[in-house]
Order: sequence, then C-alpha cells, then structure tokens
Amino acid sequence: MTQRRDLLAVAALAGAMAVPAMAASHALPELNWRLATSVPPTIEFYEGAVTFAEEVERMTDGKFKIRVFAGGELVPAFGVFDAVSDGTVEMGHTASYYYFGKNEAYALDTTVPFGMNYRQFQAWWNYGNGKTLIQDLFAKANIVPFPAGNTGVQMGGWFNKEVKSVADLDGLKMRIGGMGGKIIQKLGVVPQSVPGADIYPSLEKGTIDAAEWIGPHDDMKLGFNQVASYYYTPGWWEAGPNLSVYINKEKFDALPVEYQAIVEAAATRANVDMMSSYDAKNPVALKKLISTGTKLRAFPRDVLEAAYAAAQETYAELRESNPDFKLIYDDMVKFQKDQNLWAGVAEGRQDAFMQSISR
Amino acid sequence: MTQRRDLLAVAALAGAMAVPAMAASHALPELNWRLATSVPPTIEFYEGAVTFAEEVERMTDGKFKIRVFAGGELVPAFGVFDAVSDGTVEMGHTASYYYFGKNEAYALDTTVPFGMNYRQFQAWWNYGNGKTLIQDLFAKANIVPFPAGNTGVQMGGWFNKEVKSVADLDGLKMRIGGMGGKIIQKLGVVPQSVPGADIYPSLEKGTIDAAEWIGPHDDMKLGFNQVASYYYTPGWWEAGPNLSVYINKEKFDALPVEYQAIVEAAATRANVDMMSSYDAKNPVALKKLISTGTKLRAFPRDVLEAAYAAAQETYAELRESNPDFKLIYDDMVKFQKDQNLWAGVAEGRQDAFMQSISR
Repeated sequence: MTQRRDLLAVAALAGAMAVPAMAASHALPELNWRLATSVPPTIEFYEGAVTFAEEVERMTDGKFKIRVFAGGELVPAFGVFDAVSDGTVEMGHTASYYYFGKNEAYALDTTVPFGMNYRQFQAWWNYGNGKTLIQDLFAKANIVPFPAGNTGVQMGGWFNKEVKSVADLDGLKMRIGGMGGKIIQKLGVVPQSVPGADIYPSLEKGTIDAAEWIGPHDDMKLGFNQVASYYYTPGWWEAGPNLSVYINKEKFDALPVEYQAIVEAAATRANVDMMSSYDAKNPVALKKLISTGTKLRAFPRDVLEAAYAAAQETYAELRESNPDFKLIYDDMVKFQKDQNLWAGVAEGRQDAFMQSISR
Repeated sequence: MTQRRDLLAVAALAGAMAVPAMAASHALPELNWRLATSVPPTIEFYEGAVTFAEEVERMTDGKFKIRVFAGGELVPAFGVFDAVSDGTVEMGHTASYYYFGKNEAYALDTTVPFGMNYRQFQAWWNYGNGKTLIQDLFAKANIVPFPAGNTGVQMGGWFNKEVKSVADLDGLKMRIGGMGGKIIQKLGVVPQSVPGADIYPSLEKGTIDAAEWIGPHDDMKLGFNQVASYYYTPGWWEAGPNLSVYINKEKFDALPVEYQAIVEAAATRANVDMMSSYDAKNPVALKKLISTGTKLRAFPRDVLEAAYAAAQETYAELRESNPDFKLIYDDMVKFQKDQNLWAGVAEGRQDAFMQSISR
C-alpha cells in the first residue's frame, strides 16, 4: 500500500504522464535470491528447499527466482543460520536443532525428544503460541523462519542385536547425535558422531553397534539393512522434526506484501509436500526391507520410559539455565498435553482399528 | 534494493511517455469473484472458505478479491456444485460427498466410511494418484477441486444409552446421513435425517436416540451434552473428511498462471489452517465436556467390525455399478493399505506412548 503510493508519487513527479494506474500499481520487482541448504541433493530434505523455490517461482511466474544450493556449496552445511543472519545469502533451508549449540531453544523449532508430531506442531504454530514465540526468538538473530518440511516420526535405527530391555543398551556404541544422543547416554549408550556416508562402513566393520538415520526410504538408500539385522521403532528423539525456511529479516521486511505472503504460502506447500512424499515412500521401502530379511522390532516399554525420564531431567536443567528455552518449552508442553489427550480419542482409535483390520 | 531500482526505472520510463515494459508484463487483472459455501458462518467449516479468500487476497495485495457467501445466501446450500459447474458463481467451498446422489465417486474427494485420515489423504493427493483421478473426474463437470479444509477423524456421536455390542444398535433411531447412514442401517440402526439446528430438540424430546455431528468443539456449541450422556468414538464414517474449494474450470483455465498457482497455494493454506484450528480447539472442548459429566465411550470392537464388513458390501456393490467409483476407490484402497501399515510402525507407536505417558 505504501508501495503503491510511492509509485503514484514517482509517476506524478515524472511529469504526470500516462503510467496506467493499474500497471504501475502491479509492478512487482524481479528478484534473484540464493537459498543455502544443509544437505546434499541425495537426501530427501533437499527436495523441501526445491519445492519451496519452485512454488515461489510459480506464484510469481518466474519474477521471484530462488536458486537452491546444496550443503557446503555456498556456505558450510551448518553455516546456514549465520549466513542468513548476516545476509550472506537471502534464504536458507535447514533444521534449527543443528544450532542447538548457539541456543538450546532453537531446537524447539525442529523437535525435541518426545516432542510434538507433525500435525501437533502445525496446530501449535497456527493456533497456539508457536509461531509468535519461535519468530520472536529468531528475530533477535535477524531471521524469519517458516515451517517448510517434515519427516514425520522417524525410526529408532539399526541394531546388530536385539534390545530386550534397558540393560541391553549398556555400553552400546550408537551413531546418534543432538539431544537424542545426550539423553540416550543416560541409559548407558555411548553416542558416536558419524557422518551419513560413514555409517555403512562403521556398522559393517563393527566399530559401531547401532545407528539411527531417518526412516525406511532414506535408510534403505544407504543400505543399512545389509549391515544390521534389527530395525527399531519409534525414533522417540525425532517425533516429527520440522525443517525450516529461513529468510534474512531485513530482506523479508523489505519485500512487497504480496511476496511476503507468497513466501509463507510456498513454505506451507513445501511443508505438506515433504510430509506427503515421506508418507508415500516410506511404506514401499519398509515392505521391501521386511521382505528381504530386516527384522522389525519395537523398543521395549522400559526403554521408552527410561528415555522419557532422562529427557525430563534434561528439560529441567535447560529450563533452569536458559530462559528462552523455559518460555517456549513450557508453552509447547502445555499445548502438547492437550493434543495427546485428543489424539488418543478419535484419531488414535480410528487409526488403531484401521491398522488392525488392514493386516 | 531491487525495488528502489524499479521505482527509478518507472520514473524514467514514465518521463519518456512509455508504459514500462516490465510494469506491463507484470500487469495482473483486478478480479472480484464470488464463492458460495454450503454452511452458515457459525460452523467452523465456513472459516476454511474465509481463510482461502484471505490468502488469495494477501498474495495479490487485494487485486484478486473473493467474496464468501454463506450456505443458501446466493445459491442453495447443496447447490454449490451446480452453481460452480455452470458458472453462476466462480468458486465454491463445500464437501463433495454432498453430491453423492449425482455420482457416488464424488464422495471419494471427501471421505468414505473407513477411508483415509487427513495425512493419508494429502499423501494420496500429492504423491499417489489422488489429485489426477479426482481432478479428471471433476473436469467432466467443469470443476477444478483442491483440498481446502479437514476436520480430522470426527466423533461417533451422542447416545442416550450405552452401546455395549451390535445388539444394542437394533432399532436405534440415529441422526446420521450419507454413506455412514446407509452402512449403519445394516447393523439395525434406523437413520434419521435431521438438520443441525433440530438435533438438540429431537434428542431432548426423545424422537431420536442418538445423533452424530462433528467433534467436541462444534458439538458443544450446539449443546448436545445437555441432552445426551454418552459420547462415542470414533466416527468411523468420517475418518478425516476433506473440504474442497471448487473453481469453475473455464474460469480457472483463463486465469494468469500466477493466479492459478496462488489459488492452489491458498487452498493448501486453508487446508492446514482448518486442521490446526480443530486440533487446537477440540481438546479444550473435550476436557470441558468430560468435566461437566459427559461419559466418553469407545464403540466396542464388534460394532466396528460389523460396520467394516457392511461397508465392504456397499463398496462391492458400488464397484459393480459405477466405473468411476471402481477406478478411484481401488486406487485409494491400495494406497491406504500401505499407509496403514506404515502409520502403525513409527507414528502410531510414538503416539500411543505419548498418550499413555501424558495422562
């Protein structure tokens, strides 16, 4: 609206000549922006960034172009936060929990162990305080984040022997990072930091006993089923991780209002698209894994309970030490409690029946 | 910065008495379209249409305006399909299963008893054959549909006595319509057609014994808890009904490509928004209902199994009599089977644990 007034003023000053009001008011800038991601194009996450860029381009008929760069191509894979914050790139697509070391509260934009699932996170974002709390936090770093992708609940990973109780975890060397690693350590696991490409040989050589990655579709691509027999569920540390689009805040604020709305809508499109993609691809991969000998197992109840208790300890510590974490975590947990109550009533009952009758 | 450059360019070109090439290529039409819905503004569904219209307006900075009309205001509540088809209005927001009488296959754009849940429907639409099959079917009626709202799994409704087995349904007069009504009839229920506003007095007077509506939030608004004690779950006949935006196909095809993409994205925004709204509001209402005496009950397994068997009979008949139904239903069921398999592995396990530990 301010923009339109400016254009008219410019036109008037330019000699009150015949710039048609309509055409002038519709002139939107041609933009060429760069978006840095944290992953190689072979990982499904990358598609979220591509979908986002394509949607923006489609909604502007190519006037707003966004070029997507793989992790490390333009800035380091885990340098996306800084690059967007300082304006090295206009945009990023990443997982905020990678930046846990800067501020633990950033993880709450992705997921934390025993956190919300995909649908619950959307509800918190759209109708709880999620959007306001998260965007206020990131505004301090000059970043505007929007949800733009989700994997759903991930798998608990690949194990070379069965886990029948918490005792079986003692001394187990497992590739697991982030908060999941910190928490599972309290159960006796020795967390290992192993890049994606090195997981297969590490499992094969036996330098690690277990490894978590994503879910059936991505895991099968890396061939983990060939070097470990047991596939555990659920990945309680990744209960619906949200991938985010980051936009440099100054640059976002300077966009015409149409482009601001289009960027947000494109993020929503990418968000739904990635979830649908995983939902469509995971069962196909899972069936193939099972038919070729993978043994599907559920973590025993005592493992989940011990992990849940360990997670609560960690959250209690973080609530003490980090006021940002306390503010956002407390709001999330309150919202989540209601969500879990309701999820078990209609959705959960129907799902359970459908799962039992489909077999 | 690009914006400022444009402004200077506009000024320069305007001085040269020319319509700037860029501004001209960007001239998008100002549109004022009408959208007919099937419901009054008091029902949450209506918000889906409002969100959709607002998003289109936001993404075009008010150039593409859509005025939303309540059910019956412009065309009859269940006349939305015909009105969009023949171009009386440019757009509609409705549930395709209302038009089951024209072609049973239309119901597959909404939901059928024991059909897919919200997430599964999105996966089928985006990465299965859902979008192609449904849009091809509706193209024959000159309509382009997009998903634009969902209630999630609904509740099984209000009963004035407990349902402990299928036998308890015999002779029960229940307000239930559509395919759910046809199927539950095979279990002994006598389906009644009662408009929303008449459900309360009918339950109160005892002219009906039971009634289904939507879920806790909408049901509480109509006060059903005051006239029936038992609230049953799940609403197996409404396992994630999808509301649709309809656009007259000729008018959609004539839109600039930007507007076509914006319409689709606005529908996605409305779709996510309505699901989030219900997810945020339903548990609040459910807690209030329970704390004021409503007795929450789950349909016994034999009721669900008998209903499932009755539904399969109905689908077998429809597959025989309606080739459109057969084509789309068979594809959906195949996709759904895989979805149910996967949903039970990671998502379902995690949800069940979270529900048990949150109590």
